[in-house]
Amino acid sequence: MSEQQPQASAAGQWVSYRPEIKVLDCTIRDGGLMNDHRFSDETVRGVYDACVQAGVDYMEIGYINSREQFPPGQFGPWKHSQEHDIRRIVGDNDSPLKLSAMADAEKSDYREDILPCSESVLDMIRVATYIHQIPLALDMIKDAHDKGYETSLNLMALSTVPERELNEALHLVARSEVEVICIVDSFGALYGEQIDDYMDKFSSYALAAGKEVGMHAHNNRQLAFANTIQATIRGANRLDASMAGLGRGAGNCPMELLLSFLHNPKFRLRPVLQCVQHHIEPMREQLKWGFDYPYLITGVLNQHPRSGIAFNESRHRGDIIRFYDSLEHEE
Amino acid sequence: MSEQQPQASAAGQWVSYRPEIKVLDCTIRDGGLMNDHRFSDETVRGVYDACVQAGVDYMEIGYINSREQFPPGQFGPWKHSQEHDIRRIVGDNDSPLKLSAMADAEKSDYREDILPCSESVLDMIRVATYIHQIPLALDMIKDAHDKGYETSLNLMALSTVPERELNEALHLVARSEVEVICIVDSFGALYGEQIDDYMDKFSSYALAAGKEVGMHAHNNRQLAFANTIQATIRGANRLDASMAGLGRGAGNCPMELLLSFLHNPKFRLRPVLQCVQHHIEPMREQLKWGFDYPYLITGVLNQHPRSGIAFNESRHRGDIIRFYDSLEHEE
Repeated sequence: MSEQQPQASAAGQWVSYRPEIKVLDCTIRDGGLMNDHRFSDETVRGVYDACVQAGVDYMEIGYINSREQFPPGQFGPWKHSQEHDIRRIVGDNDSPLKLSAMADAEKSDYREDILPCSESVLDMIRVATYIHQIPLALDMIKDAHDKGYETSLNLMALSTVPERELNEALHLVARSEVEVICIVDSFGALYGEQIDDYMDKFSSYALAAGKEVGMHAHNNRQLAFANTIQATIRGANRLDASMAGLGRGAGNCPMELLLSFLHNPKFRLRPVLQCVQHHIEPMREQLKWGFDYPYLITGVLNQHPRSGIAFNESRHRGDIIRFYDSLEHEE
Repeated sequence: MSEQQPQASAAGQWVSYRPEIKVLDCTIRDGGLMNDHRFSDETVRGVYDACVQAGVDYMEIGYINSREQFPPGQFGPWKHSQEHDIRRIVGDNDSPLKLSAMADAEKSDYREDILPCSESVLDMIRVATYIHQIPLALDMIKDAHDKGYETSLNLMALSTVPERELNEALHLVARSEVEVICIVDSFGALYGEQIDDYMDKFSSYALAAGKEVGMHAHNNRQLAFANTIQATIRGANRLDASMAGLGRGAGNCPMELLLSFLHNPKFRLRPVLQCVQHHIEPMREQLKWGFDYPYLITGVLNQHPRSGIAFNESRHRGDIIRFYDSLEHEE
């Protein structure tokens, strides 16, 4: 019987690394969905410092969503990420770390609220869109691009998009100004073989157009890290992660797992662990993100985790069977 | 650009299933490493009932290890799994569920303590072995096989075994009486590409000899479930899992995730969730299994989790940086 050689993957050999890979921290942006974006300045600065020290490439500091739709009194500063708030944390950001903010289609007054890049400490705008909002999202991408930003289009709830619509969307996105097209498994519903399939499809459109593919995973089925490295192996060069996996519901790909996996010597694990210990874990008792049975169930059903989040905020938290039966009876 | 069809995997299509796949519950056996095998009869019966109702194929009820080396006063009954203890839980096991026990190489008085299969309610003996114990393990396999049991050889700490020794071991095991050869990622150190590689190697020896390949994963890097389904896709037909992932240190592949993924209609998720809610989660505060940063660190370093377990039992639990620095300074 012949011995097989370890196969070279698109990610390179097992001991080496792919220098094109860039990591984006979305702790404050995605985590803000668990506390209406009310983080203390100390926490945001803790994440910022950790990203700089750990060699993370981008930090997404929050949303730039509408102050009319989401009145500042009802939300913390990272729902709107105004320039003076960002600069209170990062000054002029005299570091190699790039800063990003996310604008949601139909929730952002992007023309007015996103400054020209030359007047902002932000480097990148990421536009989050559902499939039916693609034309609007492309206008938002053009606006940000014309203002001088790097741009990314993040296609949410991918696991529910019919294939014909996805093909049409990718065709349009490939012809746009955007630099990155990001797979978003909003419901944490996908597993490895499906990631391979989506990566092949996204790459077939993106690479020919000179764009990168990104991966933003959720942990409903404890697959956020696994799916992120699967996408990496299949060619994704833009990877989202968050400190201790902080993020909506089951949370995200944990930064500490991702950096411990990547071999680029520019990355450092210790500052991430420090941030997790001193800034993130102390919030767990209150914010309660992370894998839990209700999120497993919504993930398997390919549903938004909102029913699981509501259940976990109710007095029934822990009554797994009650939640399971409630969704089964709905069907 | 041509559209790709979803590739058929060894696991079959995405919506169908592979009837050969058999699931083994190791909750009490592996979980016993967190409480010196002292489970209440009610807990063991709860797991047994859940396995029967959920359509699980095997339940591993404990170890058959030496009463001389491990005096019964110092350990609960599932360190020795004597026939009268098992029957107190399962009676004559009038169910389709098969029962298994594990014997450790060099820790088991297997010749004396394992009854002839005709006198036991057990159906399978699994032998756990390190690479240097293979000749002894093969004698244990022969003993169990000759007594009438199904047998499995579980090669522990695979991630540290030099390739030449692994090839020699697989050559010997393939010629033995054993029915199943199980990959054991004791340190939770492996990721998907490595699982592919090991599966190809194990399969190349096992399939030609008419044996099945199994997967026993640990969750140090949150990859236990991902690696188990990766092995499945690559052809593994014997899968280990435990209720709520209960097991040593970071724990195992969670049964609730595995059954929610497999499509064989004989499997039922609800009895597993019931067992998790009523019998397993109530033990979490005391047993403290599951993903935690010290286990991530030992996993990345490809080390036994014992230093992480000791740390988590000390007053320093939660001081992640202290543990990280202690291992770094050791190097």
